Amino acid sequence: MPQLDHLLEANRGYAETFDRSSLSMPPKKQLAIVACMDARLTVEEFLGLRTGDAHIIRNAGGVVTEDEIRSLIISTELLGTREILVINHTDCGMLTFRDADLQKKLSAKYGSDAGRVRFHAFDDLSINVKEQVKKIRESPFISRDIPVHGFIFDVKNGRLQKVV
Amino acid sequence: MPQLDHLLEANRGYAETFDRSSLSMPPKKQLAIVACMDARLTVEEFLGLRTGDAHIIRNAGGVVTEDEIRSLIISTELLGTREILVINHTDCGMLTFRDADLQKKLSAKYGSDAGRVRFHAFDDLSINVKEQVKKIRESPFISRDIPVHGFIFDVKNGRLQKVV
Repeated sequence: MPQLDHLLEANRGYAETFDRSSLSMPPKKQLAIVACMDARLTVEEFLGLRTGDAHIIRNAGGVVTEDEIRSLIISTELLGTREILVINHTDCGMLTFRDADLQKKLSAKYGSDAGRVRFHAFDDLSINVKEQVKKIRESPFISRDIPVHGFIFDVKNGRLQKVV
Repeated sequence: MPQLDHLLEANRGYAETFDRSSLSMPPKKQLAIVACMDARLTVEEFLGLRTGDAHIIRNAGGVVTEDEIRSLIISTELLGTREILVINHTDCGMLTFRDADLQKKLSAKYGSDAGRVRFHAFDDLSINVKEQVKKIRESPFISRDIPVHGFIFDVKNGRLQKVV
């Protein structure tokens, strides 16, 4: 457990000064964010969000699959969010490989066929952002009157650039 | 766009004092976290993590579906993470409904059959955490020597409690 003890110690410190016990379940700013899992994106920080403000959904690439649609339906239908942001970023790991290569590597390494595992690697950031926004807009279960914005975060200067 | 202008203004402030440009792609602490999207969980903060330290994967409930396995494979195989934490939390929205009820509500509201959309609602936090950890451990493409821990975060006091 190389990190666990440090994390738990940090959590004890956090709990000692914890002052968010009055927050309720629905996000205060009625916002849902879909972003990449990348360690260089501290999403709340670069958007000026505080604990309690927004749903934060993250995965490899900041892509929208069935599971992100599931989270967004729960967010908008049950917890009152009214605006969605999709955030991809420069220097993303998803730009560095192709699905077929990783499938081959995994199949060889683990002796189990990874040929059907889709990784959603991509080679153009702007196009990818637009495609993810489109998938949200096309869901039959996300209200048409909820705006969906798409952005690229630049890991070299911390700036968001609007794509769509 | 009720929030967008405020978010972009906050981002301009963030970019002005941005000092993370030297961080590289692989997470410094070789950690991947799977947690709920809930607005009351600022994951980096309650674990004492800094920008650059860990992959953060989040969704409604902190559940593990095909998409979280996808992210975890990319994290561990391509970006060197060596330890995984799954974090659910008290007062989770996923404890407040049943899949069948939300499916019915959506089908009626949007005039499209939502009967096949799985939401992964659950009614026992500890059991749910154990099941998510188990799904990661059973993936044929996540190395057996990577420890997977399961926790519950208490939104009333900020404390993490180990489940498994």
